[in-house]
Amino acid sequence: MGLKVYGHRMSQPARAVYIFCKMNGIDFEEISVNFFTGETSSPEYQEINPMKQVPAIVHGSLKLWESHAILRYLACAFPGVPDHWYPIDLHKRAKIESVLDWHHLNLRHGALRLVQAVVLAPKLGRPPNPQVAAEAEKLLCESLEKIETVWLKESGPFLLGNSEPSIADLSLVCEIMQLEVLDEKDIDRILGPRKIVQQWMEDTKNATKPHFEEIHGLLYETKAELRKQRLGANNA
Amino acid sequence: MGLKVYGHRMSQPARAVYIFCKMNGIDFEEISVNFFTGETSSPEYQEINPMKQVPAIVHGSLKLWESHAILRYLACAFPGVPDHWYPIDLHKRAKIESVLDWHHLNLRHGALRLVQAVVLAPKLGRPPNPQVAAEAEKLLCESLEKIETVWLKESGPFLLGNSEPSIADLSLVCEIMQLEVLDEKDIDRILGPRKIVQQWMEDTKNATKPHFEEIHGLLYETKAELRKQRLGANNA
Repeated sequence: MGLKVYGHRMSQPARAVYIFCKMNGIDFEEISVNFFTGETSSPEYQEINPMKQVPAIVHGSLKLWESHAILRYLACAFPGVPDHWYPIDLHKRAKIESVLDWHHLNLRHGALRLVQAVVLAPKLGRPPNPQVAAEAEKLLCESLEKIETVWLKESGPFLLGNSEPSIADLSLVCEIMQLEVLDEKDIDRILGPRKIVQQWMEDTKNATKPHFEEIHGLLYETKAELRKQRLGANNA
Repeated sequence: MGLKVYGHRMSQPARAVYIFCKMNGIDFEEISVNFFTGETSSPEYQEINPMKQVPAIVHGSLKLWESHAILRYLACAFPGVPDHWYPIDLHKRAKIESVLDWHHLNLRHGALRLVQAVVLAPKLGRPPNPQVAAEAEKLLCESLEKIETVWLKESGPFLLGNSEPSIADLSLVCEIMQLEVLDEKDIDRILGPRKIVQQWMEDTKNATKPHFEEIHGLLYETKAELRKQRLGANNA
């Protein structure tokens, strides 16, 4: 029973699913659905995911969307996934669920809206909205502070003091990676003071190599391209 | 090993946890933490939940917050909880996870922000923000439409076509109940056209009686009080 993953390497939750599969030897067919060009709204894709978002999976009779639900499912449905990704122990699992649930209206909401307001809106010809950008950055910075003071408070390298990464580490680090498309000075302002977050991101990249960097290749290319455009605009 | 639930009956996710416990015969000590008066920011409460929100639970050595994480944990940790609340079957569980994850940035984000902008902001002496209210109502209405056309598309009375409620039904219905504090004409405009949602809410209330109505008692009292205040303001 083959696994199909519908996504795009510029989507942070899709990248988390790709990396998880590769880390755990889960064979899958990667089907690119480009949300920039409206492919997520095609009638064919809405048959897979009526919410018109990526990622989504098809596995036998199951059609599933929402990246955290997908990661939980894959961790349970495929034999041989190491327990640290989504522990069977009820207390350990519950704490990871707590991080995953917190993510949506905190780190994700801040980071996603900031990138949309600062990078995507101008690309789509929409007027800049400094108020939305400022609110989003505030939430993002508060979220990064909570990651350092609450979720990374314990002594282990990963969230909740764990010695190995869980699906929560993967999801949150892929989210923060999306900030790479911002201007260098914005990245420095937001992430520069966050030494604990920086170390945790390095640890997560190291624990998931070489797949982490491979799956982020398109993001790095896009970052370089945007940088070139900004330098050109500044020189003009 | 006693279970302590820190919450408040005006908090929609706390109500979902209370109702779940009562429905499943889970004994707990209800500890009221009033977020209106800042009790969630006390040093004592931050020892329980550093995110300064309700609900949270303490169960043995476990301190846990985020209502969906709590509901999942309770469904697994207490023997005798019927399977329909959080099924062991991987496909069924995955679909319920998908609803729970979708909830945060859709129904919850819309409903919460609307109530905050329209009811709470004036109470706290903040200026009204019609733009935030309009954006929140738009997201709320889109979310209600998605509940009808996606999550309630199948023929069963509950989400995903299920014949009995899951923790997702409980969480989402408690969220929509919070709209009771809005003005009658606002409720009619938003929920009036949503006959399928209305029927599902009735079915969920019936499946969880008498606990649903008992736990919502304070919300109904608050609704009546707000209505009296509005009538007074209109007559003055």
